[in-house]
Amino acid sequence: MSKANVLLIGTGGVGTVVACGLVHNGSSTVSVVVRRDYEKVKNDGWTINSVDYGNLTNWKPDNIYPTVEAAAKGQEFDYVVITTKNLPDVVKSEDVAEPAITPGKTTIILIQNGFDLGRPFIAKYPNNICLSGVSHIGSHNHNGVINQISQDKCMISYFENPNIENSVQEAKAKEFVQIYSNDKNNVTYFPDVKYCRYEKLLYNATMNTTCALTGVDTVRLKLSGVLESVSIPAMYEVIKVAKADGVDLSTDFIDFIVKSCDSGFFKPSMLVDVEKGNPIELEVILGNLLTVAKELKVETPTLTVLYNLLKATQFRMKEGKGLIKVPEDRPINDAEYN
Amino acid sequence: MSKANVLLIGTGGVGTVVACGLVHNGSSTVSVVVRRDYEKVKNDGWTINSVDYGNLTNWKPDNIYPTVEAAAKGQEFDYVVITTKNLPDVVKSEDVAEPAITPGKTTIILIQNGFDLGRPFIAKYPNNICLSGVSHIGSHNHNGVINQISQDKCMISYFENPNIENSVQEAKAKEFVQIYSNDKNNVTYFPDVKYCRYEKLLYNATMNTTCALTGVDTVRLKLSGVLESVSIPAMYEVIKVAKADGVDLSTDFIDFIVKSCDSGFFKPSMLVDVEKGNPIELEVILGNLLTVAKELKVETPTLTVLYNLLKATQFRMKEGKGLIKVPEDRPINDAEYN
Repeated sequence: MSKANVLLIGTGGVGTVVACGLVHNGSSTVSVVVRRDYEKVKNDGWTINSVDYGNLTNWKPDNIYPTVEAAAKGQEFDYVVITTKNLPDVVKSEDVAEPAITPGKTTIILIQNGFDLGRPFIAKYPNNICLSGVSHIGSHNHNGVINQISQDKCMISYFENPNIENSVQEAKAKEFVQIYSNDKNNVTYFPDVKYCRYEKLLYNATMNTTCALTGVDTVRLKLSGVLESVSIPAMYEVIKVAKADGVDLSTDFIDFIVKSCDSGFFKPSMLVDVEKGNPIELEVILGNLLTVAKELKVETPTLTVLYNLLKATQFRMKEGKGLIKVPEDRPINDAEYN
Repeated sequence: MSKANVLLIGTGGVGTVVACGLVHNGSSTVSVVVRRDYEKVKNDGWTINSVDYGNLTNWKPDNIYPTVEAAAKGQEFDYVVITTKNLPDVVKSEDVAEPAITPGKTTIILIQNGFDLGRPFIAKYPNNICLSGVSHIGSHNHNGVINQISQDKCMISYFENPNIENSVQEAKAKEFVQIYSNDKNNVTYFPDVKYCRYEKLLYNATMNTTCALTGVDTVRLKLSGVLESVSIPAMYEVIKVAKADGVDLSTDFIDFIVKSCDSGFFKPSMLVDVEKGNPIELEVILGNLLTVAKELKVETPTLTVLYNLLKATQFRMKEGKGLIKVPEDRPINDAEYN
């Protein structure tokens, strides 16, 4: 069998380790897109301190490209793996990947936070398979050095595309597991994509959001009583939406999360983003969930207030990045901002 | 008539101008308690740039004391005016003022933000009259210089004490207006204390809180849609509680607040406090309102989430001031923090 041709977009802490996993497996040609640090990585590769793959210096995959366009020149990809942050209100992943996606051929794999991520891809690429990777990994890119502190654990499923036989989508998901899994990581096929996503959302939609708004870590969220008064009610709302969507989440997960707050001072990713002034993954973590809740007519009063409040936080993040300009002179025409 | 003996506690932007007003009127002996800058103020007085009283240098009232205890030594007060921030979860105003309050004699005047402030005073001093001053003034203490940019407008009422005839309380409120009002300020007796307080709360409970949580000013609150999606629903909840409490607030106030967001970039006091790392007036602005809502069985879902979230913000503020210590070692016994 000839090697699969894979392009990976998004070489942060997670993406770089996924690329390592693909290379370590050896069944694919692995190309990556590196936008910000292209020259540096092209010349020197990465320094990676990995619990899975050891301490690597000058590590490079097969090919490194500065843009998706450059990567797509003269070749087609069997797989495009997207491991960027998912910020549809800033830039749409389905547009970013477009040059590398051959309609009816390329399989897309979204190893990203959030919920119901396949929807815009299936709308845009109705004849392509879109896989889901739910990653549980501790890995960070700190000034170009990758520190992976917990094993790459990833559950692969498919976002159900009604235009393609499920058996075909399932086979493709398992095929991707074959080229990504290896003796170091823990990559498995998991049949129920919604279950995976709801389970992770139980934390992300409730802990990320409350910590991001209040500026406290999970220990202080619990000590201040807000875990109990806001986050846990929000968790029950996630469970209610999941149930209406055909997914039974055990309330044991809530006990697990509560206990996890005792184990150490942890800042969820959305709080880290706010502290760094980065746009937050509000739409994929909470916006998409509320869209589904609305479709299923499930009431989510707590999650809705959290979402609505975080719109202002996101506004502040975007303004800080120059993505929004607020005129100095008042009054202004507000209509264009809403 | 002999001069009334007045003690004022809290010489920030508001309190200092109130003291000026009392002195300008001339009917009282005005003593103030200055804790932090006692030596400086004792020697040099204040520099006050006031739209009401002009530019004053080395301004001093009749007496300046370093503590309430020192002020109370050898004298009794007819009035104790409290113009400190009201932070019952940090320090209780009714305890701070205690040395200066003669049971059955001293009239207490609370010129402070918040709602239902009289309750703990009437509980502690059942035979004293407790007046309410709702102040609309722009005045700030910046490094010991007072800048008063809008007229001192204050509405005086009484917090109804069931142990004292209303006519006596009303007469006392009017008497205080007589010694505080002058040709420069705008101090009036306003019979309906609840109306005043609910009206101010319509802004403070909904704009202060959402801006404090999201870190944006009122212009950005509107541009991001959060004024519409969170603050205004919260305003309708305040109106609902007020109605159940016998106070009819016009929804015209909401239009007025929305319009005020267009006029300039304004940071409500609670956001300013968060940015400075100061404890916020959460309990008197929102906690007391929710207590009354509960007593009246009015549902306040939005206000409740805002209040609950801000408990974590307040935790962070208090920890920053050394008022809470979180042990570095985990796990710890959380029970004592809740």
